[in-house]
Amino acid sequence: MARYRLILAYDGTAFLGSQRQAKDRTVQAELENALRTLGWTGRSILMAGRTDSGVHASGQVAAFDFEWAHSPEELRAALNACLPRDMAVRNVREAPASFHPRFDASARRYRYRLFRDAIRDPNREWFAWRVWPEFDEAVLHEAAPLFLGRHDFAAFGSPTSAKGSTVRTVTLSAWKRLGDEWRFEVRADAFLYRMVRRMVFVQVAAAQGRLSVQSIADALEKPSKLLAGLAPAHGLTLVEVSYKDRSSK
Amino acid sequence: MARYRLILAYDGTAFLGSQRQAKDRTVQAELENALRTLGWTGRSILMAGRTDSGVHASGQVAAFDFEWAHSPEELRAALNACLPRDMAVRNVREAPASFHPRFDASARRYRYRLFRDAIRDPNREWFAWRVWPEFDEAVLHEAAPLFLGRHDFAAFGSPTSAKGSTVRTVTLSAWKRLGDEWRFEVRADAFLYRMVRRMVFVQVAAAQGRLSVQSIADALEKPSKLLAGLAPAHGLTLVEVSYKDRSSK
Repeated sequence: MARYRLILAYDGTAFLGSQRQAKDRTVQAELENALRTLGWTGRSILMAGRTDSGVHASGQVAAFDFEWAHSPEELRAALNACLPRDMAVRNVREAPASFHPRFDASARRYRYRLFRDAIRDPNREWFAWRVWPEFDEAVLHEAAPLFLGRHDFAAFGSPTSAKGSTVRTVTLSAWKRLGDEWRFEVRADAFLYRMVRRMVFVQVAAAQGRLSVQSIADALEKPSKLLAGLAPAHGLTLVEVSYKDRSSK
Repeated sequence: MARYRLILAYDGTAFLGSQRQAKDRTVQAELENALRTLGWTGRSILMAGRTDSGVHASGQVAAFDFEWAHSPEELRAALNACLPRDMAVRNVREAPASFHPRFDASARRYRYRLFRDAIRDPNREWFAWRVWPEFDEAVLHEAAPLFLGRHDFAAFGSPTSAKGSTVRTVTLSAWKRLGDEWRFEVRADAFLYRMVRRMVFVQVAAAQGRLSVQSIADALEKPSKLLAGLAPAHGLTLVEVSYKDRSSK
């Protein structure tokens, strides 16, 4: 019996109960089903975090104990043969027996994709938020660095456990342009519930002139209540979960 | 009664009978259904061309006669309110009564997207071909210009009508890199059946060292039989259909 750590990618669309697929699917249940096909008899796998309904991942991390006679690469290939088209195991490796993908994580990185367009675009709207009316790109670049550092993010999200701290440390917060798409890249030790989607929403609102950049700075310095507005889930991707201990990386 | 010309975008995935959606949907039938909801009583719309099952479009062109009391912009908004999430009308304008989206077209432009990866990637494989093993990018750039100009493309596709000509004139044929993705941009007066997918397949085969660039040149100079191999439909998008007559543009 060994503990395995795997990196998982999925298209969150069909986990939203959209027209693509029936409701009530979960990423965890699909992965557990695939493992059971290979003879796994465990009760439940461990996950680095639950992404909101509809959020995508390219670097979700899961762990489980399994008696597997072959190599990690063969486990990856066997799982991918069992998983549906909208999920894939990107990497499998052995981990220390005590490895926990959530509690051992030292940082998480997310990407939020958006584009400007007045009219629906069915080739892009599964993975990026269509923003309209026009916005001022310069305001995005002005707002993003405000999040850097240690702040009380109580205005941007709810703690993941009751009475948990709302203080988080953001180590990356920047907009990048790729073609006609903007990508918000953000990394923190951990995130509050729906924190990235609120960070994106207020920056876009500021860039559209509906909110001042100063009010974002104020919400970080003296958080009173949760800010209104949420960028849609389908623009968000969990890109990477990092671990301090090299042996479990 | 006026003739309308519209530009249509769609995600071809669900028109392939994939897990996303039930089989036997067609783009044309969905658009006709939306028009009927708005009171259209015609029998059939005209389309610039039928894309293969699974192929996407951002610039498909359709035309129909309709007695519509409001503006073209209002027709666009009304149609988009009726269409499913994987289709959208990007533009509506009035056209001359004789306008035919297929017979009046002077050029078509397609884009084929691909990326290199050993492992499945559920966030990208709806719109791009995952190519493995590694390939040499320089060979793509060497092969693409061979297609430029007037050639007998009999080795690359079948004529769209029985005993039709296989001679076509290619006016754009180039690979562009965007992030970690390659895009083959190609424009011709018209294309043979599955011509773009064969052009992509042979270029990738050459870039992987499984075929010589010279054999592509030979197939263009002295076409004997149809080349084997077809890049998958899901990487291909019909980007634009052009018309000479300015009044119908």
